Amino acid sequence: MEKTKEISGNTYGKFFVVTTWGTSHGPEMGTSIEGCPKGLKISQNDIQIEVDRRKPKDPKISTTRVEKDQVEIKSGIENDITTGETITLTVKNENTRPQDYKNVTNAFRPGHADVAYFIKYGNSEKNTIANETGGGRASGRETVSRVMAGAVAKAILKKENNTEIFGHTIQIGTVKANNFDKNFIEENSLRTADKSAFPAMMEIVENARKNGNSVGAIIGITIKNPPKGLGEPVFDKLDAELSKTLMSIGAVKGIEFGSGFSAATLLGSQNNDQMEIKDENIHFLSNNAGGILGGISTGEDIVIRLAIKPVPSIATPQKTITKDLENTEIQVLGRHDCCLAPRIIPVAEAMCAIVLTDMLLRNL
Amino acid sequence: MEKTKEISGNTYGKFFVVTTWGTSHGPEMGTSIEGCPKGLKISQNDIQIEVDRRKPKDPKISTTRVEKDQVEIKSGIENDITTGETITLTVKNENTRPQDYKNVTNAFRPGHADVAYFIKYGNSEKNTIANETGGGRASGRETVSRVMAGAVAKAILKKENNTEIFGHTIQIGTVKANNFDKNFIEENSLRTADKSAFPAMMEIVENARKNGNSVGAIIGITIKNPPKGLGEPVFDKLDAELSKTLMSIGAVKGIEFGSGFSAATLLGSQNNDQMEIKDENIHFLSNNAGGILGGISTGEDIVIRLAIKPVPSIATPQKTITKDLENTEIQVLGRHDCCLAPRIIPVAEAMCAIVLTDMLLRNL
Amino acid sequence: MEKTKEISGNTYGKFFVVTTWGTSHGPEMGTSIEGCPKGLKISQNDIQIEVDRRKPKDPKISTTRVEKDQVEIKSGIENDITTGETITLTVKNENTRPQDYKNVTNAFRPGHADVAYFIKYGNSEKNTIANETGGGRASGRETVSRVMAGAVAKAILKKENNTEIFGHTIQIGTVKANNFDKNFIEENSLRTADKSAFPAMMEIVENARKNGNSVGAIIGITIKNPPKGLGEPVFDKLDAELSKTLMSIGAVKGIEFGSGFSAATLLGSQNNDQMEIKDENIHFLSNNAGGILGGISTGEDIVIRLAIKPVPSIATPQKTITKDLENTEIQVLGRHDCCLAPRIIPVAEAMCAIVLTDMLLRNL
Amino acid sequence: MEKTKEISGNTYGKFFVVTTWGTSHGPEMGTSIEGCPKGLKISQNDIQIEVDRRKPKDPKISTTRVEKDQVEIKSGIENDITTGETITLTVKNENTRPQDYKNVTNAFRPGHADVAYFIKYGNSEKNTIANETGGGRASGRETVSRVMAGAVAKAILKKENNTEIFGHTIQIGTVKANNFDKNFIEENSLRTADKSAFPAMMEIVENARKNGNSVGAIIGITIKNPPKGLGEPVFDKLDAELSKTLMSIGAVKGIEFGSGFSAATLLGSQNNDQMEIKDENIHFLSNNAGGILGGISTGEDIVIRLAIKPVPSIATPQKTITKDLENTEIQVLGRHDCCLAPRIIPVAEAMCAIVLTDMLLRNL
Repeated sequence: MEKTKEISGNTYGKFFVVTTWGTSHGPEMGTSIEGCPKGLKISQNDIQIEVDRRKPKDPKISTTRVEKDQVEIKSGIENDITTGETITLTVKNENTRPQDYKNVTNAFRPGHADVAYFIKYGNSEKNTIANETGGGRASGRETVSRVMAGAVAKAILKKENNTEIFGHTIQIGTVKANNFDKNFIEENSLRTADKSAFPAMMEIVENARKNGNSVGAIIGITIKNPPKGLGEPVFDKLDAELSKTLMSIGAVKGIEFGSGFSAATLLGSQNNDQMEIKDENIHFLSNNAGGILGGISTGEDIVIRLAIKPVPSIATPQKTITKDLENTEIQVLGRHDCCLAPRIIPVAEAMCAIVLTDMLLRNL
Repeated sequence: MEKTKEISGNTYGKFFVVTTWGTSHGPEMGTSIEGCPKGLKISQNDIQIEVDRRKPKDPKISTTRVEKDQVEIKSGIENDITTGETITLTVKNENTRPQDYKNVTNAFRPGHADVAYFIKYGNSEKNTIANETGGGRASGRETVSRVMAGAVAKAILKKENNTEIFGHTIQIGTVKANNFDKNFIEENSLRTADKSAFPAMMEIVENARKNGNSVGAIIGITIKNPPKGLGEPVFDKLDAELSKTLMSIGAVKGIEFGSGFSAATLLGSQNNDQMEIKDENIHFLSNNAGGILGGISTGEDIVIRLAIKPVPSIATPQKTITKDLENTEIQVLGRHDCCLAPRIIPVAEAMCAIVLTDMLLRNL
Repeated sequence: MEKTKEISGNTYGKFFVVTTWGTSHGPEMGTSIEGCPKGLKISQNDIQIEVDRRKPKDPKISTTRVEKDQVEIKSGIENDITTGETITLTVKNENTRPQDYKNVTNAFRPGHADVAYFIKYGNSEKNTIANETGGGRASGRETVSRVMAGAVAKAILKKENNTEIFGHTIQIGTVKANNFDKNFIEENSLRTADKSAFPAMMEIVENARKNGNSVGAIIGITIKNPPKGLGEPVFDKLDAELSKTLMSIGAVKGIEFGSGFSAATLLGSQNNDQMEIKDENIHFLSNNAGGILGGISTGEDIVIRLAIKPVPSIATPQKTITKDLENTEIQVLGRHDCCLAPRIIPVAEAMCAIVLTDMLLRNL
Repeated sequence: MEKTKEISGNTYGKFFVVTTWGTSHGPEMGTSIEGCPKGLKISQNDIQIEVDRRKPKDPKISTTRVEKDQVEIKSGIENDITTGETITLTVKNENTRPQDYKNVTNAFRPGHADVAYFIKYGNSEKNTIANETGGGRASGRETVSRVMAGAVAKAILKKENNTEIFGHTIQIGTVKANNFDKNFIEENSLRTADKSAFPAMMEIVENARKNGNSVGAIIGITIKNPPKGLGEPVFDKLDAELSKTLMSIGAVKGIEFGSGFSAATLLGSQNNDQMEIKDENIHFLSNNAGGILGGISTGEDIVIRLAIKPVPSIATPQKTITKDLENTEIQVLGRHDCCLAPRIIPVAEAMCAIVLTDMLLRNL
């Protein structure tokens, strides 16, 4: 018997259990959610809004493929109310235009997963071109399923604790965001919160695009009003679960909480968040912990930063090899994102929402 | 019924299943390993060596508590050969000296998990002092169970693929290691591989200690000869699992693979690892991916860096609050580590070994 | 937050992981299968055949509702070949005719799950009538998802070991089958293998129906050429897993393997299956074990019998209570099965196929 | 790498998670319990009492091996109160007297698991005699771990709902118990509740023993005051979980609930349990359901019967084969139980208690 391609890596969560399915070549992408409490108000439109945020915003940055992504509710929500049973959500695949992938036929794309899949599974799919393996479960297309589940999770967190999760681009190339205007985030194609830094960021992206290149970025995720006390001892700490799920997003290569890597240069007296009572509540004088102590949320803002690598698909010629193990050179043409930061943000928010909801239900 | 403190956060792994148990107040710390193949040669001494590496190396850096930690094999290994059944390993708790914790009685230690546990579980344990909660499963003591399991995992990886996992301190305060002498790592109390940087690193640690303070660090983990093709699609990517387990170690606040956060400033053409065929094998011209592409190991060295926060327990006076929600000031006296990097290294290595072994067995 | 109705009871299997979803009120019923090896040949029609076997065969015995149940493949099978990714299969719900359920509005049906759901979940769904709860996940409609997954499992077992699984009715009322003609099973509406016993069995069923009553039955399941060595030690023994999944089918109230309950009256010397070598193979002189020893398949036929209770929905007046906890009398009218045996057979076969496939993949 | 012998079949439960470990050849047998609520009062003696009930009661029926089985608490219980963390309980192995097993050296015992293990794992353990495989995890010795966990579960159920679980022998050979005197159960070596049937039952057992034979039995398990509403939809129904865990006990070959197999001969009107309101509570006029409807406990007594096969180890000569696949004859001498019913009862009670507790915690 030939090996299965997946050993149950499609599911996340113990109480709010999200399973994604479907490949970009198949007819549908789907997500199943088990454990969603009944009686939650959520409409198709609430989910559609999040799915739409994941779509390309600007042809200067992102692919020009049109993804319609109409969300369909197949089970678990009736009359905009969850029934307490498994929620199944799908979107159809359309407009796949495989010919876009056909111009480079037998060579692996540097920085891309296709060579890793070749190393793992071998040349068993003889009839497919090397870079079509990316059309499977490793494709970024899979993240639409995560965003659908995240929309449900966000609704739970909003209802339970008025929790809000938002991401923004805080660095592209060497340009850092220094100002924070929350309203600006969804108004610009890079999802930065710094209006004054936006032009310089945009210039870097446009230069890269013009030169057949791509750029990396850092994004920040803030979780305001997170439920307190989330996270379980030992392996299932809150920051451990967030790290797993955020690192499971393609292109993420680093993650830090609070002071993160800069903690290396701090003394304990600088890094510790001192406390005092203020209005009868625990008040932290700083938030170097990023809202998580001992793997448990304290109620402070959860502050995360993610390193995003440059999109590997670039038109610049690169040395590579073919499936037949011969040397060659590749130029990856076609419609590709140039900077992933703005499109990863809704996915990262979704993963945070899913983790917090799972932990919230474990905690109840 | 009062709530349990743990909802199955004690177990990691799907095929190589590690469960840790025991608290520092109880009689024993233990680890159970399910899924270890039979016929593996491993002696009590092989495990003891790793457990001994976790012990304090130098009173200038670490606690002076003597931890005997004699490993006992309770099941699953007979005559230095695994039987294929559950392996149970234990160490006894001794020399707990609770009076060391008694000098600060009712106040939370800034930067420490005790306030988070209070937020999560409330004041239900009325007879215990605030900072004794750290004696439970959140205690660093729990990591001895991880190291025991890691020793078994290391033996499997060594046998299967001659895999070697080692960590070293690459930054303390602002002093970075620039040279690499592998042999030096276990010869110095900071586990740095840079002999010339060691004195400056040590000076920072000693200054912090003299001043009743502590310091952060960055450690690097290198996995040489990792099995190829490890990692599952979607959520259980290899870097996702490594991130979860490494972030589940107390004091780790950041993690990055390969170029990590510096990828933000790179172009795709700089960050992509180009390939060529060399001696009939796939050869990568660089390793910005840190050995993992699309969540799957390529066979290149896996390169990880971890941000370690300064030890929160410091003698410097800090503002804090009591369990009765009153303001106070605290000086955490007693025997505490001053820089955690050298002691975290064997724990981080253990977690990497456990993850790779689990993925290896999933892959077989 | 209101409680969810399900805590992950929708999934069975560790390596061949089957999750069912959907309720009879919603738009679709679905099944997801993770872990199915790639390269398996299976067409929509192979699955449709099994789903069709589950449909009512004869209006004298079963409901006259027309269930179209057109199987749709949503992911994981392309060009009649499994891709190795999650397989998603669905059927649409049609022709639900809720008015059939409306004639008894507020009273629990004796022998039916509705009162148990009321006890478990309370009167929270105030706008629904008592016996509509049966329309949820407890409905027999859910078993269509099991049959779809079972069809895939059967194809795997057929390919791997030429395994064949078939059930037949061996007792209705006091009439027992004494002859075995395998070809007759699918030719008669009761799925008995005894042509001579069929008229007497049928008479019992028809009498019950005429009298507004229903009848119980015993069905036998035989698994020919089961893979050898299936079943794991301790809790996940093969007979344990079969028992769980078969008992999870509504109306099953008893299960036995091999000599089963009659073993009580046997001596060890009578019940033990003696062995000899025949044609260089292990040959058992009898099969009182029913093909499973110590929880592991020996390769002998696996022989199972299931006790099926009479359908609880009967037109005979019965004492019962309402949701308002008042005494009343009920006659359950509408289209209902009268003897469940023939329709449970394909479901029971499906569960056996799923268990064996899961164990086979665990064993590989 | 050689195959592991176990793929996570050592664990049962989702919220009250019981893992057993140890083999009869190793130094200790153990059980780990995760998810036990904190604050439960339970002493070493409470657990010891249950473990002692599992010991042989009477040399006429059972093995004369002395099993000391002193329960040791390793974690999770301090000062007779659960701490909320993992509970680890162990007993030492002593008095194994392997020479007892040596008189039959190379032949499989009919009716015993050793041939099944040989079929599954092959002749890899070349230095062991055939019937030593029974000394591993398949040994009845493993059930001491179940009983320890069951004692904790019983304490939870007793505290929460005053639940009581007891088993008794209801048939040996053709002698059935017709009277029920609960007090008599623990007073007689067969654990029957029928004082008048006891002599005839005993005679059957003694005759079998004298003749180098063994006898089967039926045991009944009654659960009084079970918590209401336990059991989850679809696969994790209460009767499904009970069936799995009870069938996972060696020697159990059948299980039925309530009217069980006799339901085949009943009409719906006879088998349905009609209801009325009595003292403002739901009152069932009969209990043919055995306390479980639709997989959910109604609060009525849960009534289970188990078929117990005769002990396969008998002194009567039987045809069998050797590990070298040659025909031979075997007489199994040594100290063996003759009728397993009385010793299985505490194990079956333990499994019921574990299942109900797991379901109770899922339900909370």
